[in-house]
Amino acid sequence: MRTHELVLSWIEKQLSDGHLVLGGRLPAERALAEQLEVSRTSVREAIRILEAMGVVRASVGSGKDAGTVVIAEPATALGSALRLHVATQHLPVADIVQTRVLLESWAVSRAKADAPELKEAARLLDEMDSSSAVDDFLALDVAFHLALAEAAGNAVVSTIMGSLREAIEGYAAALTANLPDWDSTAKRLRCEHRAILAAVNDGDGARAATLVAAHIEGYYREAGLGQPPAETRP
Amino acid sequence: MRTHELVLSWIEKQLSDGHLVLGGRLPAERALAEQLEVSRTSVREAIRILEAMGVVRASVGSGKDAGTVVIAEPATALGSALRLHVATQHLPVADIVQTRVLLESWAVSRAKADAPELKEAARLLDEMDSSSAVDDFLALDVAFHLALAEAAGNAVVSTIMGSLREAIEGYAAALTANLPDWDSTAKRLRCEHRAILAAVNDGDGARAATLVAAHIEGYYREAGLGQPPAETRP
Repeated sequence: MRTHELVLSWIEKQLSDGHLVLGGRLPAERALAEQLEVSRTSVREAIRILEAMGVVRASVGSGKDAGTVVIAEPATALGSALRLHVATQHLPVADIVQTRVLLESWAVSRAKADAPELKEAARLLDEMDSSSAVDDFLALDVAFHLALAEAAGNAVVSTIMGSLREAIEGYAAALTANLPDWDSTAKRLRCEHRAILAAVNDGDGARAATLVAAHIEGYYREAGLGQPPAETRP
Repeated sequence: MRTHELVLSWIEKQLSDGHLVLGGRLPAERALAEQLEVSRTSVREAIRILEAMGVVRASVGSGKDAGTVVIAEPATALGSALRLHVATQHLPVADIVQTRVLLESWAVSRAKADAPELKEAARLLDEMDSSSAVDDFLALDVAFHLALAEAAGNAVVSTIMGSLREAIEGYAAALTANLPDWDSTAKRLRCEHRAILAAVNDGDGARAATLVAAHIEGYYREAGLGQPPAETRP
C-alpha cells in the first residue's frame, strides 16, 4: 500500500468507527504525519483525494474556520468522476440519459404524496414560471427534478441522480443552443413539470413514471443529445 | 481555482478533445509542470485524484511501462467514494441494497437473450457449483451479477452496479458470518441464480426482474444486513 493510501484507510476507519463525524475536523497535517509516520506530502495527497470525493473540505489559513472538515457531498464528487469517464468516452451520454430515466421513473413512482419535498417542488415550479433567462430556468429545473427524487426517500438514488446531472451539465448547457425555439420549449417543459407533480400528488405513481420518462427523453431528443453515434450502436 | 484543479481541468479537456485517449500516456510530471506553469506538487496531487477516480494508473520507475496511463475503471473508483460516504453514515446501507434491486431488476428485464454475457454468466454458475469456499463463491457471485447487468448493454448502469457492490463489499464479507448455515444458503443461491438466468434466456424479462429482486432482498434479509436503524427510519 502506498503511503497516501495508508492515510486514506486510517481516515476511513476513523469515519466508520464514528471517531470522525460529519462537521468534525481532521488532525492537523503535521500531527497526522507524525502519528502515522508518513510524510506531510502523503497526508496532503490523501486530503486532496478526500476533497475530490466530497468527504472533506480543506481550508487554508488560520482562525476558527481553518482546517479540514468532514462534509457529505457525494453527488458533486461522483459527478466529477462520471464526467471524466464520459470524457474518456468510456461512458456514453446516451447511457447516462437512459439511467436518468430509470432512476427518476422509479423515484416518482415511489414518492409519497405527503413528502415535504413536494411542497418545495411546487414552489420551484412557481419560480420557474417567472424566469425567462435560460440559465435560471435550467438551475430551477435541476432543483425540481432533485426534489422529486428526494421525495422517494432513498439517499443513494438521489446521490446518483445528482451526479448524473452533474456529469452531463456541460452538455445540457450547450444543448439549449440546438433548440429551435427556447421559449416554446420552456412553455412545454413547464406544462410537463406540472403534470408530473400533479400525478405524484394524486398518488398515481405509474402515471408519474410514464410522464417523467417521456419528459426526459423528449427533451434530449429535441436537442439531439444522447443520440448514439451510428458506429458504436447496433 | 487552485493549481491542482488547473491541472485536472487541463487533463479533462485533453480527454474530451480526444488528444488523450484510453491507453495513452500523460506527459511527464516535470514537462506538465513547466507547460502549465505550476509546481510539480500540484501536478502530483492532480494525478493522485485521477488515480482515485479510476481515470489513470501511475507507475513509478523507468522503462516502457513507466508513466501515467489513461485507464477506465469508474466502478472501482466510484465504489471507493460511495464506501467513504457509507462510512460517514450519509448513505444508508439499506438504500444501497434498494438501489441494487432497482438497477438489477431493470438490467435483467432488458438483457437480450442472445447477449454474449449470458454465456459467461452460465459458465460462472457451473464454476460456482464446484466451489465450496465462501470467498470463491462470493467472487463468482459478484461476477455473475455483473455479467447479467452487462447483458443489458448500458455501461452507466453496469458501472453504478459495480460501484454499489464495491461499496458494500466489506459488509458482504462480514455478513456470511451471520448466516445460520452457509451450505444451505449457498445451495439456495445456486438454484435462484439458475432460475434467474433461465428466465432471461427465455426472454421473460418480467419474471427475471421479480426473481432477481426476491433473490437480493432475501439474501440481505437472511443475514440481517440493510435493516435500517429504528431511529433513522419511520
